[in-house]
Amino acid sequence: MLTLDKVYRAACVLKEAIRQTDIIPASDLKAGSQIYLKTENLQVTGSFKVRGAYYKISQLSEEEKARGVIACSAGNHAQGVALAATKSGIRSLICLPDGAPISKVEATKRYGAEVCLVPGVYDDAYNKAIELRDTCGYTFIHPFNDPDVIAGQGTIGLEILNQLDDVDSVVVPIGGGGLIAGVAYAIKQLKPNVRVYGVQAAGAPSMYESVRKNRLSALDKVSTIADGIAVKQPGDLTYELCKQYVDDVVTVTDDEISSAILTLMEKYKMVAEGAGAVSVAAAMFGKIPTEGQKVCCIVSGGNIDVTILSRVIKRGLLMSGRNYAMTIELPDKPGQLSHVSQIVSTLGANVIAVHHERASEGSDVTGCFLRIEIETRNFDHIQQIRNQLIAEGFKLI
Amino acid sequence: MLTLDKVYRAACVLKEAIRQTDIIPASDLKAGSQIYLKTENLQVTGSFKVRGAYYKISQLSEEEKARGVIACSAGNHAQGVALAATKSGIRSLICLPDGAPISKVEATKRYGAEVCLVPGVYDDAYNKAIELRDTCGYTFIHPFNDPDVIAGQGTIGLEILNQLDDVDSVVVPIGGGGLIAGVAYAIKQLKPNVRVYGVQAAGAPSMYESVRKNRLSALDKVSTIADGIAVKQPGDLTYELCKQYVDDVVTVTDDEISSAILTLMEKYKMVAEGAGAVSVAAAMFGKIPTEGQKVCCIVSGGNIDVTILSRVIKRGLLMSGRNYAMTIELPDKPGQLSHVSQIVSTLGANVIAVHHERASEGSDVTGCFLRIEIETRNFDHIQQIRNQLIAEGFKLI
Repeated sequence: MLTLDKVYRAACVLKEAIRQTDIIPASDLKAGSQIYLKTENLQVTGSFKVRGAYYKISQLSEEEKARGVIACSAGNHAQGVALAATKSGIRSLICLPDGAPISKVEATKRYGAEVCLVPGVYDDAYNKAIELRDTCGYTFIHPFNDPDVIAGQGTIGLEILNQLDDVDSVVVPIGGGGLIAGVAYAIKQLKPNVRVYGVQAAGAPSMYESVRKNRLSALDKVSTIADGIAVKQPGDLTYELCKQYVDDVVTVTDDEISSAILTLMEKYKMVAEGAGAVSVAAAMFGKIPTEGQKVCCIVSGGNIDVTILSRVIKRGLLMSGRNYAMTIELPDKPGQLSHVSQIVSTLGANVIAVHHERASEGSDVTGCFLRIEIETRNFDHIQQIRNQLIAEGFKLI
Repeated sequence: MLTLDKVYRAACVLKEAIRQTDIIPASDLKAGSQIYLKTENLQVTGSFKVRGAYYKISQLSEEEKARGVIACSAGNHAQGVALAATKSGIRSLICLPDGAPISKVEATKRYGAEVCLVPGVYDDAYNKAIELRDTCGYTFIHPFNDPDVIAGQGTIGLEILNQLDDVDSVVVPIGGGGLIAGVAYAIKQLKPNVRVYGVQAAGAPSMYESVRKNRLSALDKVSTIADGIAVKQPGDLTYELCKQYVDDVVTVTDDEISSAILTLMEKYKMVAEGAGAVSVAAAMFGKIPTEGQKVCCIVSGGNIDVTILSRVIKRGLLMSGRNYAMTIELPDKPGQLSHVSQIVSTLGANVIAVHHERASEGSDVTGCFLRIEIETRNFDHIQQIRNQLIAEGFKLI
């Protein structure tokens, strides 16, 4: 059972293994508000998950420790359990679906775990982990639905109250609900007037739906760039705690999440994964009340693949009018490319890529297509360039 | 004149305006060493520069403050002066060359400065700033060659000694030398046994050359991705302090800097600009002694354009064998693209981009070129794919 005492004990145990992450002011995120970021993306392993895993392991009996632990995850929980076990001097085995990204498999091994690649998807890996638990005696470490794991994550709530005076509300990403269950519980026990908001990805709103419907609900499928919180069903324990202690649960779209990731990089020089940025997206896009308030957003993790990050940057630039691609149908006579380039550069845009192709299907046989990608200042700037091209007789597709 | 007293006074004044940035352990950067990161990229304005600017401004007379301050910079110094002036309640005017990136101009305005765009390059903007100082009475804030500015940057040295017990050495980026002059001075006054290393970009080694030649030297040109430290000539003051207090100055290449930026993003979830990452590059690539040592690398700033960051990510992936592009000459008959794709996917690589072109110059008239970009695990993986393609009769260009 979860008690405040347990959360305090977890905080005491965790001192030897994890960092008290910094809280960084980020008021530019939303005018008229004092926004702060609890930077769990800068936690060891790049996510808060190591807290719950380490505390859970510390509570095992010597006999359980001797048998080792097992977990199933392709992400932050895998790395958290791996490091927590290694720091506790015990064996860990992590079951991963065989399609898991190489980088995550490597990171899990680097933290000292044995890795068992299971053919199939997450559910197959989960079933394998349960089977190995039953046949080999490993202790299974659940990613969220466990009072000790929840107590470990709840230590973030204690830290926020300690680090940030007079906080009005705390905004927390929700996947399975372990983080918010612990944080909301700790905060409401100590300062019931502090509001706690949960945020889910619109493409994986299992806790949102459960709270709305007032019963534990499962989704058929989940789809979001915030893969760390793409969970089909919350735990019963986390759901009950959430229902009791969380003020509201809201959702954010993938575009809003991308925009938050880009803002965190550009303004606050931090890498957040999609799951870690949903709290910031909720504050930025007015999903929760922030006006005149002191709001602490938990940035829960930073484990995002750099190639995905590149795509997010691109998408964020497109969404803010700072990158634009257009296709122009050109008469096939000399000087056209030069004319377009000159218009674009005179108006202060920067050409990134050009693709020029003659006699494509659909174009006049004497014409050709120019696809041009440019760096721009904002949407007005794009409109200005489009207008000028049209004014000088070019046909934009 | 620089005194330890002045550095302590600066630390006291700065409390009201800036953050004491966190020091984060990063031992994975270099096996066998304890590496720590002093995260000045997470400082307000995204760089340490605000420290020197704010302390300098605090030391102006009321009359000087009333006339406002002027500076010339397209980067971190501009934003530092702008915010420092705004927080001190005084006017600031920043001269920028008119080709400065839009994002930097906007950030400077956002921190409350007036911006004067000067046609030409940096030197033109500098001359304009001096002219405005002389004609309008502004106080010029030098980016590095000023004892108050140096004292402000030196507060980082005090913080490191305070935050990190038993540090053996501190690694500091060098552009004009203001940061290292202050840090080295403060550290050597208090703990002369702590070593201080300076790092420059190989494409802009003005302090490196000056120290080697034992006289203040200027470079004809500078070229590096670390634009924040691309300085043609150190200050006389910073040079003298560097000569007296710095143990060694080393250089790192742009590829090493790119690799450090990528590592900081992937492992430590932080965005660093080129100038901010040179210290980390020096530790990673063995340019300074780290074996068995407790080493603190100052990550001095994080203001890097996200489009450049995308390119750095790409370059870093290429350099570590995780991205590969190849051109294959194909016989122009059906099924070739499919055959190549099948080989690539069977070996577990991921296709990112394909460009397929018929009858290019230089190829057999019946042939065509396929340019294919793939995601790979490492160099061995690339070699495996190349070998298989060759074994199945394809011609790699």
